Amino acid sequence: MSIEKVVIVGSGPAGLTAAIYAARAALQPLMFEGFNAGGLIPGGQLMFTTDVENYPGFPEGVMGPTMMQAFRDQAERFGTRFIREDVRKVDFSKRPFTLESDEHNVQAHAVVIATGARANWMGLENELRLAKSGGGVSACAVCDGALPIYRDQDLVVVGGGDSAVEEGSYLTKFAKMVYLVHRRDQLRASKTMQQRFFKLVEEGKMKPVWDSILVDVHGDQSITGVRLRNVKSDELRDLNCKGLFLAIGHTPNTELFKESLELDDKGYVKPPNPGNTYTNVEGVFAAGDVVDHTYRQAVTAAGTGCMAALDAERWLAAQGLE
Amino acid sequence: MSIEKVVIVGSGPAGLTAAIYAARAALQPLMFEGFNAGGLIPGGQLMFTTDVENYPGFPEGVMGPTMMQAFRDQAERFGTRFIREDVRKVDFSKRPFTLESDEHNVQAHAVVIATGARANWMGLENELRLAKSGGGVSACAVCDGALPIYRDQDLVVVGGGDSAVEEGSYLTKFAKMVYLVHRRDQLRASKTMQQRFFKLVEEGKMKPVWDSILVDVHGDQSITGVRLRNVKSDELRDLNCKGLFLAIGHTPNTELFKESLELDDKGYVKPPNPGNTYTNVEGVFAAGDVVDHTYRQAVTAAGTGCMAALDAERWLAAQGLE
Repeated sequence: MSIEKVVIVGSGPAGLTAAIYAARAALQPLMFEGFNAGGLIPGGQLMFTTDVENYPGFPEGVMGPTMMQAFRDQAERFGTRFIREDVRKVDFSKRPFTLESDEHNVQAHAVVIATGARANWMGLENELRLAKSGGGVSACAVCDGALPIYRDQDLVVVGGGDSAVEEGSYLTKFAKMVYLVHRRDQLRASKTMQQRFFKLVEEGKMKPVWDSILVDVHGDQSITGVRLRNVKSDELRDLNCKGLFLAIGHTPNTELFKESLELDDKGYVKPPNPGNTYTNVEGVFAAGDVVDHTYRQAVTAAGTGCMAALDAERWLAAQGLE
Repeated sequence: MSIEKVVIVGSGPAGLTAAIYAARAALQPLMFEGFNAGGLIPGGQLMFTTDVENYPGFPEGVMGPTMMQAFRDQAERFGTRFIREDVRKVDFSKRPFTLESDEHNVQAHAVVIATGARANWMGLENELRLAKSGGGVSACAVCDGALPIYRDQDLVVVGGGDSAVEEGSYLTKFAKMVYLVHRRDQLRASKTMQQRFFKLVEEGKMKPVWDSILVDVHGDQSITGVRLRNVKSDELRDLNCKGLFLAIGHTPNTELFKESLELDDKGYVKPPNPGNTYTNVEGVFAAGDVVDHTYRQAVTAAGTGCMAALDAERWLAAQGLE
């Protein structure tokens, strides 16, 4: 069995950018682009995104799947090989590393992990349908908040942590009112973020809806409202809105690596040094949302994907493994 | 005088991506896109680049100036305002910060510095002309090394430090022979990089040309060779080649900030924490090649530009300055 120079796991912006750079560095990368692990498909989260307006280079915007096809074409053009399967098992305890999918068993000198993270959803049928169709349901205010459909409208954010307040606060720039729906009667958010929240409430920009959970989403082409259930009284309530933002966390796709790599308490890959893409296992690099709690943008993922390929290339050269 | 929420200095991939994100966050960014400081023009180093093949999203490649126009159009579409002047003076010692150009005096709550770095050149007329026209002269092997014009050709790298060996080593993947031209009779590179160099020499992939400096570049449409002068014997020698890569360092464009911000020993902005874009001055953020010794790619600069805008937005929100 021949040993691959570099194997990339994951095919979102981070993985495909790593592939473009690794391929141009003549490393003939092999990519496991995945099949359906973590509820994702090849191309990653952007395959479920309609308009991408903030990836630089596309002034008129671009559809998520169109953009990911362009990334993939570019990686392929320079010689990336693709396996459309999920990796089932890895062994990073000795080099060369091994990676197994249903039909392949691969050895690799270097590995780039770019399996991403997935936004958490309530799992309601109409919530998921409208999220996929661009009907006013989103898990990313920074990505979607500036869209015209949300201007001067009533919006709902679900969640009670720092990122729920952050997303809500971001949306107040555009919205008429941002309702924060939380299942408890107080926030989990940090003190600073709570202060920010209550200041926005005072200013008439946000309003809490305590003790409530989302039980249904109304709307056909686009959202018209949400149904909430009060967890104390069991009362149902309909709230009209033109946008719904889920802010109930993300789950990094690291189940596969939990025995092999150091992860943080939320399950993200934990890089020993945030200035590069090394992991705690020499020869294994990580890029994109699988390491990123904070920014989660296509362009930040692409940037770290590039870094991972260059880190891997230089590491391989230093080992004499090219 | 009104106070700007965020002022961005520099208009390469980092600055324009920061502008896209800041504009979409309704911060109405104001950008000093520069005029000719540091030998650069608005758009930055890519304005002197012909084919960009590795920026993800353009599978057929894109011309550098075309790409930067797309970035600028996108930033403008969301409301960025531009001043086509160089900043002459900054005061970061008190908030709001002040920035002065020839015709403008601006106050800002937050500043994003994205002034980039410039590759060092010998300054020969034909060297600069062929670098600008895509005639086989470059200062970035990772960017350009994979182009077909360099395949199986004799290439020349000028320099004697780690990055000269790194660029040369990278080029051996494509070249027939890589000549390393250095003005001394030994490398400045680290021991590890010297070992890598001499291994490549043994393998017949690289060859040193000691005690020599580049004094002329031959070629009309594209490079055909270089003229070298031996600094000990003063002898002139012509060396045929199809590519010339300058690896004699970069100069970060930080002259303007040397009294105001902490810089490292090479003049780059020194971020206290490499995982974000904060500088040592609260409210001043930095992104792109002005902080990056290592990767220097359009997509890595764009990624950190996005981070800087999000860091600035969150910092402003936390200060109640939005």
